[in-house]
Amino acid sequence: MNTKFENAMMLMPDKGHSFKVVRGTLVTSKDRIVFAGSDEEFSQYENDLKEDALKIDETIDCRNNLLMPGFKNAHTHTAMTFLRSYADDLPLQDWLTKQVFPKEALLREDDIYWLDLLGIMEYLTSGITANFDMYFYPRTIARASIDAGFRTVQTSSFNNFGGSPESMEEDYNFINNMGSDLTSFIIGFHAEYTTSMDKMERVASLADKLKSPVYLHNSETRREVDECLERWGKTPTELMDSLGMYKYGGGSFHAIWLNDNDYKIMKERGLYAVTNPCSNAKLASGICDLKRIIDDGIGLAIGTDGPASNNALDFFREIYMAAVLQKLKYMDAAAVPADEILYAAVSGGAHAMGLFDCDSLYPGNKADLVMIDMGRPNMQPENNIVKNLVYSAAKDDVKLTMVNGKILYRDGEFFLPYSPEEIYAKANAVINRMR
Amino acid sequence: MNTKFENAMMLMPDKGHSFKVVRGTLVTSKDRIVFAGSDEEFSQYENDLKEDALKIDETIDCRNNLLMPGFKNAHTHTAMTFLRSYADDLPLQDWLTKQVFPKEALLREDDIYWLDLLGIMEYLTSGITANFDMYFYPRTIARASIDAGFRTVQTSSFNNFGGSPESMEEDYNFINNMGSDLTSFIIGFHAEYTTSMDKMERVASLADKLKSPVYLHNSETRREVDECLERWGKTPTELMDSLGMYKYGGGSFHAIWLNDNDYKIMKERGLYAVTNPCSNAKLASGICDLKRIIDDGIGLAIGTDGPASNNALDFFREIYMAAVLQKLKYMDAAAVPADEILYAAVSGGAHAMGLFDCDSLYPGNKADLVMIDMGRPNMQPENNIVKNLVYSAAKDDVKLTMVNGKILYRDGEFFLPYSPEEIYAKANAVINRMR
Repeated sequence: MNTKFENAMMLMPDKGHSFKVVRGTLVTSKDRIVFAGSDEEFSQYENDLKEDALKIDETIDCRNNLLMPGFKNAHTHTAMTFLRSYADDLPLQDWLTKQVFPKEALLREDDIYWLDLLGIMEYLTSGITANFDMYFYPRTIARASIDAGFRTVQTSSFNNFGGSPESMEEDYNFINNMGSDLTSFIIGFHAEYTTSMDKMERVASLADKLKSPVYLHNSETRREVDECLERWGKTPTELMDSLGMYKYGGGSFHAIWLNDNDYKIMKERGLYAVTNPCSNAKLASGICDLKRIIDDGIGLAIGTDGPASNNALDFFREIYMAAVLQKLKYMDAAAVPADEILYAAVSGGAHAMGLFDCDSLYPGNKADLVMIDMGRPNMQPENNIVKNLVYSAAKDDVKLTMVNGKILYRDGEFFLPYSPEEIYAKANAVINRMR
Repeated sequence: MNTKFENAMMLMPDKGHSFKVVRGTLVTSKDRIVFAGSDEEFSQYENDLKEDALKIDETIDCRNNLLMPGFKNAHTHTAMTFLRSYADDLPLQDWLTKQVFPKEALLREDDIYWLDLLGIMEYLTSGITANFDMYFYPRTIARASIDAGFRTVQTSSFNNFGGSPESMEEDYNFINNMGSDLTSFIIGFHAEYTTSMDKMERVASLADKLKSPVYLHNSETRREVDECLERWGKTPTELMDSLGMYKYGGGSFHAIWLNDNDYKIMKERGLYAVTNPCSNAKLASGICDLKRIIDDGIGLAIGTDGPASNNALDFFREIYMAAVLQKLKYMDAAAVPADEILYAAVSGGAHAMGLFDCDSLYPGNKADLVMIDMGRPNMQPENNIVKNLVYSAAKDDVKLTMVNGKILYRDGEFFLPYSPEEIYAKANAVINRMR
């Protein structure tokens, strides 16, 4: 499938972490972007190719629309869609131990497939083209993404209550050898507070053996850090570093309660901070210090976390929260400019997930892109397109979401192997079975 | 125009500030809801009417959809759409004095009409059916709303730099006698920090003469309160009360930096607190204490503020922020339940604006309602509809917005006297003229 986008505004990388809008044409061939530039450059490009010019299957007129790289949702527990709006407005510990854990114990492998598809539908509606997932049954998660045509990088949820280094290694080898570039696997585990020392040491040696980065929940709550300090005399970040966990990089989901030495380790080891502002607000965990992370030159990515704690998987809401919570945290309206947030959302996330060819609309990159309708009232007038995207855009502006060169969502309609009704029926059957 | 909504889920008031979902039929006749109840009750109702039964012009099948009262956007500066994304990420004082004020000085009366229509379009996309506006040229604002078929209550932006008690009284009389129930006017002024003592005293006597409530920006920033204390030895709320400003009620826009006595005055005088969580975060003003306001039994309403400081006029984002910022403020995930936020958004706002017949779907009330598509992935599964609305809903879930019995927005399309293209062209002409 080759697609030509005509008369488009294209959001392209500019100096540093900023963006520029280029007007012209973008062409995708199979899973890749093969051209993105002005109409003049496109004429030259076609001229050079002569009879080798691409046969275009569909031409899309993008007049008044913006093409941008897809959002990378860099921390998710997608299949938790079944717990959306199930147990909100509760203290964190009650929420986890009395509501989430008992219900998760009732999940079956087949449930994961359908609950994942429900989450993927929702990702598509806000222009998310890839997610970084941590949940049970990683092979089933990979299958759901491949069947949907969606891109999913996974890490492990291994901890004292489930999984093993052996099964993680098997999943790593299995998923990274499925022959699909829609799915991959990175070493990881749940968190220090759920995982014993011998298990963490075994994760570290597995990462060493496989030369993999390591991801985990890290410093999400103050209590987590305090208890880790009590147990080991080190913060979670210091402890992981002392275990040699970060030889090949990795990162921290949440990354809120960090000290100076933690930031230093993250910078030195090239770790990524994956922030989850909506979940952290709703569960009263705190506000991640994005300004410090950006100023220190630490890689920043953004994620929605799971639908049990967010509750939506809406990247427009997520980037807005990421931006404005910094202004509240610093009591400074100038804290963290919009460009930095958008860069983290589309490029930083890609890098954290190892998707280095999904980070921009440059030719050669994967065709993971979104078309934004600039003809909606909230995107008008056009004072500044990047600020419109970060501070004003919403899901009803998404006209089209393309992953790996295939259109999976367009004008409110999904192009997936199952109908929405079938997926909703399966999801509702799960919650009804558990009642 | 009489409209019948069949097979609907309807969000109806329950005990206190909570809601219940009733399944059945809702009928509107001209500008009013005339029936809302189960299908059985509807058969009985039709039977009782016999030949006087309504002639229905359109029947809408609401299968899988939810009917709910429209959101009341209880603090706006709608025509500031021209400044959206114009000057973000700046310190508050620079933003106001170097960017906002100089550009506002270039506004012409005719601009207001078109910039207002742009804002009204945006209101409709997130299910807002009424706004409480404060801006220049109130008669033009009223005309834009009447032409659009939208409901707008206004108050005055009078201060040292513009307006007079005389013109306010004229606007009050003019707008409240336009013969349209789409628009009305309540006494008010900009804020203590922009208005001299003699002018405030004249507002108080005008409110007394007209038996009107009084609304103003109050305690938005700590600096505003500190400076008022220095000037007058009283907080803004204490000062207004001492001037007899609140004889007929009224309220405070923002209401962040209040002390115990301020809350006491608000409670005793029956004042409303209108919170603006997105604007307050983005401008780093602070977090309004909704928990205290609710616990004290003070009336609560929610507003987006203007598009220069928000930047979207998206009520789903606004109610989400209202809810989750309380959890961060108290570091308690249980702070303020979702029902209270939804009540403030649909009913509390109506009461603050004097729209007592727009606060619920009860028969007899105005037909100001919204149809929400429950067949979107973010609204599935259906664990809890109120929590889905507050924590998960987004603008792409809005299927239809009806104001005063007329459908103004449906399936992404606007039913207004001008095309979107015409309105956008006018708005872009304003910003181009000012460059």
